[in-house]
Amino acid sequence: MSASFPGEGAFFQRRGPFSLADVKQAIGLPRDHGAEEAVEYEGVAPLHTATKRHISFLDNRRYLPLLKETHAGAIVVSRAFADSVPSDTVPLVCESPYLAWSRVARLFHPIVPSRSVRHPSAIIGQNVEIGENVEIGPFVTIGDGARIGDGCVIAGHVAIGAAVEIGAGCRIGSHVTVSHAILGERVVLYPGVRIGQDGFGFAVGPDGFETVPQLGRVLLGDGVEIGANSTIDRGSMKDTVIGGGSRIDNLVQIGHNVTLGRCCIVVAQAGISGSTELEDFVTVAAQAGLIGHIHIGEKARVGAQCGVMSDVEAGADVIGSPAMPFREFFRNVATLRKLSRKKPS
Amino acid sequence: MSASFPGEGAFFQRRGPFSLADVKQAIGLPRDHGAEEAVEYEGVAPLHTATKRHISFLDNRRYLPLLKETHAGAIVVSRAFADSVPSDTVPLVCESPYLAWSRVARLFHPIVPSRSVRHPSAIIGQNVEIGENVEIGPFVTIGDGARIGDGCVIAGHVAIGAAVEIGAGCRIGSHVTVSHAILGERVVLYPGVRIGQDGFGFAVGPDGFETVPQLGRVLLGDGVEIGANSTIDRGSMKDTVIGGGSRIDNLVQIGHNVTLGRCCIVVAQAGISGSTELEDFVTVAAQAGLIGHIHIGEKARVGAQCGVMSDVEAGADVIGSPAMPFREFFRNVATLRKLSRKKPS
Amino acid sequence: MSASFPGEGAFFQRRGPFSLADVKQAIGLPRDHGAEEAVEYEGVAPLHTATKRHISFLDNRRYLPLLKETHAGAIVVSRAFADSVPSDTVPLVCESPYLAWSRVARLFHPIVPSRSVRHPSAIIGQNVEIGENVEIGPFVTIGDGARIGDGCVIAGHVAIGAAVEIGAGCRIGSHVTVSHAILGERVVLYPGVRIGQDGFGFAVGPDGFETVPQLGRVLLGDGVEIGANSTIDRGSMKDTVIGGGSRIDNLVQIGHNVTLGRCCIVVAQAGISGSTELEDFVTVAAQAGLIGHIHIGEKARVGAQCGVMSDVEAGADVIGSPAMPFREFFRNVATLRKLSRKKPS
Repeated sequence: MSASFPGEGAFFQRRGPFSLADVKQAIGLPRDHGAEEAVEYEGVAPLHTATKRHISFLDNRRYLPLLKETHAGAIVVSRAFADSVPSDTVPLVCESPYLAWSRVARLFHPIVPSRSVRHPSAIIGQNVEIGENVEIGPFVTIGDGARIGDGCVIAGHVAIGAAVEIGAGCRIGSHVTVSHAILGERVVLYPGVRIGQDGFGFAVGPDGFETVPQLGRVLLGDGVEIGANSTIDRGSMKDTVIGGGSRIDNLVQIGHNVTLGRCCIVVAQAGISGSTELEDFVTVAAQAGLIGHIHIGEKARVGAQCGVMSDVEAGADVIGSPAMPFREFFRNVATLRKLSRKKPS
Repeated sequence: MSASFPGEGAFFQRRGPFSLADVKQAIGLPRDHGAEEAVEYEGVAPLHTATKRHISFLDNRRYLPLLKETHAGAIVVSRAFADSVPSDTVPLVCESPYLAWSRVARLFHPIVPSRSVRHPSAIIGQNVEIGENVEIGPFVTIGDGARIGDGCVIAGHVAIGAAVEIGAGCRIGSHVTVSHAILGERVVLYPGVRIGQDGFGFAVGPDGFETVPQLGRVLLGDGVEIGANSTIDRGSMKDTVIGGGSRIDNLVQIGHNVTLGRCCIVVAQAGISGSTELEDFVTVAAQAGLIGHIHIGEKARVGAQCGVMSDVEAGADVIGSPAMPFREFFRNVATLRKLSRKKPS
Repeated sequence: MSASFPGEGAFFQRRGPFSLADVKQAIGLPRDHGAEEAVEYEGVAPLHTATKRHISFLDNRRYLPLLKETHAGAIVVSRAFADSVPSDTVPLVCESPYLAWSRVARLFHPIVPSRSVRHPSAIIGQNVEIGENVEIGPFVTIGDGARIGDGCVIAGHVAIGAAVEIGAGCRIGSHVTVSHAILGERVVLYPGVRIGQDGFGFAVGPDGFETVPQLGRVLLGDGVEIGANSTIDRGSMKDTVIGGGSRIDNLVQIGHNVTLGRCCIVVAQAGISGSTELEDFVTVAAQAGLIGHIHIGEKARVGAQCGVMSDVEAGADVIGSPAMPFREFFRNVATLRKLSRKKPS
């Protein structure tokens, strides 16, 4: 358990070293062709452990004190923090430092391309179409008629149901189950994700609940990522749809017939009940819950632990349970605190 | 990803066509033996995509505008909406339209009966009793002395522990683990469910926490269904019991020694702490949490995100954290809003 | 489904009988060498079902009425309840009755030691080091260069990634995935736990979100236990660290770079966002959520469903969303109730 730099050691593959010129190119900064640009770096590291052979990063004011003491060789920062960079450290000033940082890290740690490997223990059904350079791990099962696009990586213990379609470049983590679903390209499913099982639908019959057939599918757009152990039920009469580019964190529940637009964000342990619709660029923070059959407008932001019981307008910021505008919520908190101190008679 | 009707395509098996007479019989409507009853239908579809060859459904007032424009051949509705059914559409007026609808859908999409199939990769322990027409998928493990009733379907990658008993007609989804448990008949476990692991029990010892042996079981009654990735811990000194007919959604946590009565409903991401007891027909909405060692009376309803810290009477409706009657909760919300606007000094 | 005593039947191994002398020794009570100490007991049982051949337990005042009617042969109680023990029952009065009880139960139900067994279906990578008496179940996969310490039990369907290190005496439950992680000794992972996957990190790029490489690890200290289907993301630039002895319940989410000190408790469905730090002995109750980048002091207690948006001082008790001191929270509840009744104009 020896101390190490991030991305080092047996867990990670690393490329490099790369010169400052390479780094600038990766993040789109102008070159000046000075001697400095020939200096080579070995990797990335946080402010407090970085050496002159590392590139570091700051975008959270909270960590500003660490910046002043860093020994990093170069650092990606926004203009606001540039003046605080020590004189021995090369500032790499960017408009979007987190994005630039991400690309520097990716330069040293590129995604490992898939290989054409099929573990002999995998069980592949009939009429399955498998593209080129597809990696299929041990104990995988793929049902009849499924289609797996080029360059996919299917980790061990994955169960892909009959007729499922998976686009090119997808990465399916260990122990995932996918059924009744069509995945676009570059979809990433983390371990334990459950896609396409029956939604929670039943009617009250004379002898107890009767399960309502769930006849829709799950459609995941290009570039969608779903976090570990999250669950996405298939539609009942229409499809459950996650729009392209959306990012869903761990332990999230998406009910049947839910629609997410493009580039939505749903943070850990949030839940979206059946038939609710989110337009593009909606953010749902951790542990928030949305009831069913409501509509959330474009770019709306739902706060952590928020309980949303009715439609939310485009661009609105809501929090609280029941949900209300941010400002109103915090005003309520202040009001109640004040009134409690007065000990109302 | 071509548009399709629900239940069509490669993901679903479909029977039919069925005549209106068949449909009426399935839902218990009286026959009139008119020419109309000979018309055949191909399947079910939502209001906005249904053609004259489909049967559709409405029970949510929110979607009433769609009813007036539907091209469905027939539609299951309650009496309240019957007058809004277009003249070209046959109204199938039912007292319980959702139940009737469920049965129509089931007519076209019956549950596929289990076959007697054991995948050669499955690992079956010693003295395991397996009934007739049991389907056992790839990479399944079944421990010594387990008993699997007639007509069960055990999907791939399932792990059934030693001595577990599973009644007839159960369906165990992919990647489920079951140990220390006795399941009644027709139990359905969705993918990733965890049944029977140790509860969260430990005592404070001189050198840290010491795990308390968990010596109870999990008992699931007939017809219980448990949603994807939900977790049900076995009892510590008594059993954890889920009463017959109860429906548990995805990502729900049930602690050790919890007892649910018959036909309880627990919606996604709710959690019930150790030793709490729910009587029959209790509903716990999404993301609600119940502390341990409390008692929830028959037919009580616990609202979404509710935090229940004490007993709830039979028939009560509670919401909020801490829980309070629905009416009180919404009165509090209104009071606080009013006070905040007044800017109390 | 016949009635049974806890720990009996096919699901459990049991030792015994043990004499009262043995029991006293197990829990550190002084011997008096009376005839009573030769009486033998068969096992443990709850108050209402225990017979004279069982040892029972009470520490929750709620169950005091059961004590007066118990037929248990002996009972572990605190001094406060000793006078209520029936005359036919031997009182075993302890300062820490729950701990003592745990040890009595462990006497009858010791942890089964691991055997040296490797199921032939397991797939072990290259250069894997496996200690003595390691038990490896069916369909396990272990990546290249992993190290498994002496006495570990790896249940079926587990996936251990390349280079993962697992200390001696760990127990890894079914269907667990572990990657990019170093586990101390005696770590217990319950079924479906996900350790070491990418954290939820992405930057906004010109064409949508871009995943930020996650270059840290997960470090689990000695004696850590993680409940079923919980998820612990690996660090982005530093490690995610769970301190020795900490206990994490089911369906808990731990974000990247989070640090827990020693002997923390995190109850079911709670979530801790990225880079937040908990010192030693912090308790986070069920369904609580902590935002990222905050600091929780030693022995602080975060209540159920609490939403923590800022640092919490050592020893503080907070609850509510947003979090506030317990006392303030309940005063607020009382204030609001009072004001609502007055129907403010």
